[in-house]
Amino acid sequence: MVLITEPAGSPVLADSVRLCDDGVHLLDRRVFPFERTWVHARTVDEVARAIEDMVTQSCGPYFAALWGMALAARQAAADEPRQVRARLAEAAERLIATRPTNDHQRIAVSWVLDAVEAARERGEDSPEQLAAAALAGARAGDADYRGRSRSMGVAAAALLPDEGRVLTHCWGDLYLTETVAAALRAGKRLSFFCTETRPYLQGARLTAETLAEMGVPTTLVTDGMGASLFSGGEVDALLTASDRVTLDGHVINKVGTLQLAVAAHAFGVPFHALCHGPDPKAPTAADVPIEYRDGDDVLHTLGRRTASERVRGHYPAFDVTPPRFVTTVVTDRGPFAPDDLAGYATAQQWEESS
Amino acid sequence: MVLITEPAGSPVLADSVRLCDDGVHLLDRRVFPFERTWVHARTVDEVARAIEDMVTQSCGPYFAALWGMALAARQAAADEPRQVRARLAEAAERLIATRPTNDHQRIAVSWVLDAVEAARERGEDSPEQLAAAALAGARAGDADYRGRSRSMGVAAAALLPDEGRVLTHCWGDLYLTETVAAALRAGKRLSFFCTETRPYLQGARLTAETLAEMGVPTTLVTDGMGASLFSGGEVDALLTASDRVTLDGHVINKVGTLQLAVAAHAFGVPFHALCHGPDPKAPTAADVPIEYRDGDDVLHTLGRRTASERVRGHYPAFDVTPPRFVTTVVTDRGPFAPDDLAGYATAQQWEESS
Repeated sequence: MVLITEPAGSPVLADSVRLCDDGVHLLDRRVFPFERTWVHARTVDEVARAIEDMVTQSCGPYFAALWGMALAARQAAADEPRQVRARLAEAAERLIATRPTNDHQRIAVSWVLDAVEAARERGEDSPEQLAAAALAGARAGDADYRGRSRSMGVAAAALLPDEGRVLTHCWGDLYLTETVAAALRAGKRLSFFCTETRPYLQGARLTAETLAEMGVPTTLVTDGMGASLFSGGEVDALLTASDRVTLDGHVINKVGTLQLAVAAHAFGVPFHALCHGPDPKAPTAADVPIEYRDGDDVLHTLGRRTASERVRGHYPAFDVTPPRFVTTVVTDRGPFAPDDLAGYATAQQWEESS
Repeated sequence: MVLITEPAGSPVLADSVRLCDDGVHLLDRRVFPFERTWVHARTVDEVARAIEDMVTQSCGPYFAALWGMALAARQAAADEPRQVRARLAEAAERLIATRPTNDHQRIAVSWVLDAVEAARERGEDSPEQLAAAALAGARAGDADYRGRSRSMGVAAAALLPDEGRVLTHCWGDLYLTETVAAALRAGKRLSFFCTETRPYLQGARLTAETLAEMGVPTTLVTDGMGASLFSGGEVDALLTASDRVTLDGHVINKVGTLQLAVAAHAFGVPFHALCHGPDPKAPTAADVPIEYRDGDDVLHTLGRRTASERVRGHYPAFDVTPPRFVTTVVTDRGPFAPDDLAGYATAQQWEESS
C-alpha cells in the first residue's frame, strides 16, 4: 500500500489512477470507500491485470491505459532502447485486450501511439525522445478526456430540472461528477437516488460516497426499485453513463441499465445517456462485444458467499438499450436524439454558455 | 435452537412453521440455507415478532398466524379459562398488525376465529372445547391453503412450455414449489433463473436452494439482469407469486416485480402472477397499503455494511404492477386475464385434469 495525497476540491475518485516514478498507482475501487488502498502496478502487464481484476473501472481504465503506455515507453527507453516502438505496440495490444465492451483503452493507447509516431516523423526518434513523446501523448489524452467530460457534463446538466430528483445506476465516474459539478455551478438543487449495482456494488460504494462528497443528498436503493420510484412519480430523470453508444443509438452500459430505461419509458421519465460521442466504428449493437464476467461473482458480496451453495451464477456485465427507450444521448458536442446521432460528426464542442 | 426433523420428499421450506407442545417453531429464513436454525416462539407475541423480524416470510406468516392462534387458545384455556375468546381476539389483532401488505394473517386468523364461533354456537364452549376448535380451525386452514396452492400450481404449470426457461423473483414459497411440482408431474423440463432479491437475498438463498432441492437446474442473476435476459430471448416466462391481487388486476408483490414485468412486456415475454384469488376487499391498488421497511436494510447485506457510510437507504418492500403488464393471474380456480378477474367469484376449484 502506498499513501497518496488526495487533492482538495475534487472527488477522490476523479484522480485515482496516477503515474509516479515507480509505476502506476491505482486506488482500489473494489474496497473503496471502506479502505483507501492503492494498488502499485510496476509494469504494463500489472496495469492490465489491475484493469481485468476491477481494481479500477468506469473511466479508470482509460487513465490506466494512458499511464500504462507512458510507463511502457519509459521502461523500454531505459531497458531496451532499440525496442521502444515494438514494446509500445505490445503494451497497446495487452491493454486493449483487458476488457472488450468499453473502447476507452483503445482510445487511450491511440493518444500515445499517435504522439510517438508524430515525434518519429519529426525526426525525434531517440529512445528518450520517444518516451517523452509518449508521456506528452498520455498527458494530452488526459486533458482531452477531462475537457470532453466537462463539456458533456455542462450539456447534461442543462437537461436537468432546476430542482429535482435523479436516479443513476452503477458509477458514472467523471461523466457523473462533471454533470453534477455543472449543475451545482448553475445553481440547480438536485438530489439523487443511486442503485447499489450488484454484484460489485459500485453504486452503494463509489457513487453514494462520491455524491455525498460533492454535497448532494443521496439515497440508495436496490437494483430492483427503480420502476417503483418511477411509477410513484419520485424521480424526474434517469441519468447514466454509457460504455459505448452505437451510431444508430443503442446504449451499451452496465447491466441493469436496460431494465431501468424500459421502466423509465413506461412511466414517462426521460432517460439521458452520457457519452463523449457515438463510436464511429460501431454502426449498431452487433458491433459491440458484451463482456461476460465470472458467474461466481453473483454468488458473492464483497468476497463473502451470499447465495445457496447449490446454484450457479450468470454475469453479463453489460446490456444494450435500444434507442426507443433512450430520450437523449448527451455528448461533448451537446444533446442528440438517439436516432439523430449522425449530426455528432460535424457538431462543435459544447460550451458552458451554449 | 431446537432440532426438528425434516420430512423426506417435500422441500424443507414447505413445512417450516410448526406447532409443538412448547410453542411455535419457525425455521429462521434470515440465515437459511447457511444455517438451519429454528426460532422458538413461546407466546403469540413472540410469533408476531418473528413475523415482523422476517424470521419467516412469503407463505410463512400465514402458517405462523394459524399456529399462533391455536397456541393462544391453548394457553388461554389453561391460564385464563374465562377469557379464551377475548385472548383470541387480542391475538388476532396482534398477528394481523404484523405486516400490512399481504392479507395472509387476516385470512389465517379468520379460520380459527370462525371455528371457535361455530363451536360456541354448537354449545361447545368450555375452555378446552374452544381450544380444540381453534386447533381444528388452524388445521383446516392449513389444509385449505395447501390444497389451494396445489390447485393453483397445477393451473400455472399448464401455462409453461414443455421445455423452457422461467425467471422468478424473490421466494414464491408454496406457490412456486407447487407449480414446479405440478410441472415435474406433467413431465415438463424446466430450468429457472432466479433473481437474488436484495436486500434480504430471498432469491439467492431460499429460491435457489429450494429449486436445487427439487432437482431443477437453477441460475442466479442480480435484480438488474432480467431485462438483459428477456431481450436476449433467454427466458420463456416470468413467474412470480403475489402478496395481493386487486379486483381490477393490479399485482402487488415484492419490490422488483414491477421492473421485471415491464421489461418482460417490452420484449414479449409473458408474465404469470400466482395468487389463490383476487382480494374481494381490494377493488384497486389504493386499497392495499405498501409496507416500507427500514431503509438501513438496503445499506447492509446479511448483517454486514456494504454501502458508503454517507448515504441513507430507502426500502419500499412491495411494488404495484398495473394490469397492462400482467399476462395471466393464476388462481386456485384457474388462469384469468388481469382485466377479467370478476369471473373468479363463480369459478370452480381447478383440478389436475382441468
